Amino acid sequence: MTRRLGVAAAQMGPIARTDSRQSCVVRMSEMMREAHAKGAKVVVFPELALTSFFPRWHIEDEEELDTFYETEMPNAAVCPLFDLAAALGVGFYLGYAELVHEAGGGKRRFNTSILVNGEGAIVGKYRKVHLPGHAEHESWRPFQHLEKAYFEPGDLGFPVFEAFDGKMGMCICNDRRWPETYRVMGLQGVELVMLGYNTPAHNPPVPEHDHLMWFHNHLSMQAGAYQNGNWVVGVAKAGREEGCDLIGQSAIVAPTGEIVAMAQGVGDEVVVVDCDLERCDEIRRQIFDFALHRQPQHYGLIAAAKA
Amino acid sequence: MTRRLGVAAAQMGPIARTDSRQSCVVRMSEMMREAHAKGAKVVVFPELALTSFFPRWHIEDEEELDTFYETEMPNAAVCPLFDLAAALGVGFYLGYAELVHEAGGGKRRFNTSILVNGEGAIVGKYRKVHLPGHAEHESWRPFQHLEKAYFEPGDLGFPVFEAFDGKMGMCICNDRRWPETYRVMGLQGVELVMLGYNTPAHNPPVPEHDHLMWFHNHLSMQAGAYQNGNWVVGVAKAGREEGCDLIGQSAIVAPTGEIVAMAQGVGDEVVVVDCDLERCDEIRRQIFDFALHRQPQHYGLIAAAKA
Repeated sequence: MTRRLGVAAAQMGPIARTDSRQSCVVRMSEMMREAHAKGAKVVVFPELALTSFFPRWHIEDEEELDTFYETEMPNAAVCPLFDLAAALGVGFYLGYAELVHEAGGGKRRFNTSILVNGEGAIVGKYRKVHLPGHAEHESWRPFQHLEKAYFEPGDLGFPVFEAFDGKMGMCICNDRRWPETYRVMGLQGVELVMLGYNTPAHNPPVPEHDHLMWFHNHLSMQAGAYQNGNWVVGVAKAGREEGCDLIGQSAIVAPTGEIVAMAQGVGDEVVVVDCDLERCDEIRRQIFDFALHRQPQHYGLIAAAKA
Repeated sequence: MTRRLGVAAAQMGPIARTDSRQSCVVRMSEMMREAHAKGAKVVVFPELALTSFFPRWHIEDEEELDTFYETEMPNAAVCPLFDLAAALGVGFYLGYAELVHEAGGGKRRFNTSILVNGEGAIVGKYRKVHLPGHAEHESWRPFQHLEKAYFEPGDLGFPVFEAFDGKMGMCICNDRRWPETYRVMGLQGVELVMLGYNTPAHNPPVPEHDHLMWFHNHLSMQAGAYQNGNWVVGVAKAGREEGCDLIGQSAIVAPTGEIVAMAQGVGDEVVVVDCDLERCDEIRRQIFDFALHRQPQHYGLIAAAKA
């Protein structure tokens, strides 16, 4: 028995600080058409796909900071992508910065992704749980990584959504390095984990690890796939963006942990794989039968509150 | 700052069903001498290193089954290894089948490992938590994997021990495929995880995965090392044992997830690496600062009791 889903990794090259959302949507629409032509039913775009990766800058002016966030979704700038999705019958994963205006006048900021179905309707939302980087401006860095200043940790957990005739999950960038991310979704039966990333090739605190960036990217996604028996689609914003190099190597990983397709460059690029969601069962039934083998009485420390 | 510990992976080739414990101890002693000569301060031997991997046989006679277990440790057969360890000032990890005679006349069976220090004293004990295989005889299999019949799941959790001027942890074989294993020890600050394995090259329920056995072995250990920032030493009993092929590729994995040394064959072989335990800090402080980045309020499912 097979249950095939055409999945596209739609890697994006750099987005300049002055690029408009409209220009990003034009690029994404073009990739969506290509993905559709190649048989994809769902297209995965990167993290924060509508703007440059702004946590690299220390932005003190709140009004300026706000320009990088979306206050509603969909909105006028992204409507063409939603319309195209509905016209083609293709769903998508989109990462963006979310600004919530609260009733009392407060603001909440999240690093968010949504899952849109083939009718152009939002069927899932995720807010990044594992925020990397730092909260204070660190002037010694060539580039900041101020995610801990510009976002709060996601408050939605790791939900799994019924869509595309399967069980879909989402996470974002640094989440992929934490085994808990995949496991919490795996325990809910996820079959396909979609994730976007912006990963600088240079990590200022440990430059001696820079040559390992690509290895760690794949290692994390391959282990998450194998250890839970799910597909993983990891999609980069890649290339030299505003002087900062971002890694590419967007990949589609089978439930065996094997990379079955990978982007070849650091620009806009579409990679499509016909993913058989039934293959998850190979791992889940024969290797990692959770009900049979897990011993949660010994895992308490993992979920214990921080000291 | 460095804190170096010479660590040896002492891979063993096959042990025949008729081989005595004494003959195994002779082989291990020879490897311990070689490891010591190469600068090792601790030697890691395989899982169930004193006998053939007996869960491959359906043994109905309880008296016969009992012959594969140790009822005390150390015992006469292994004393020469303990004595040699003390003479050389070298510690070791040893896997064996443990039989506990209870006061009421009952028996408890565990797949166990111990950590012995450079004075020949047992300083740590672990009982395998994740038992693979099956509990009933399955006649269609060319080889059984009756660990679920011959052992009960370990009841000691994943303790971490102060030894060799560092924090030591243990697990056994299938444990290495479960990210919880490393994480529970990682949260206790483990710096070196020692593990032995007996991994058949052929998995009868999913023969289509047989070519992935070696990949999965390394993937699991590399992810566990990187995601927690600890060294991993994984040591095989390897080669064709009683007609059943066991994988080799014993490996020493750095806290970066890199394999820094690997066995080259499937026989008795010693691989030594001078492991700097301070390197754990590279990952723990700069990449995976648990206190800063983990969000355990979203991990509840992992430790929840089975439905």
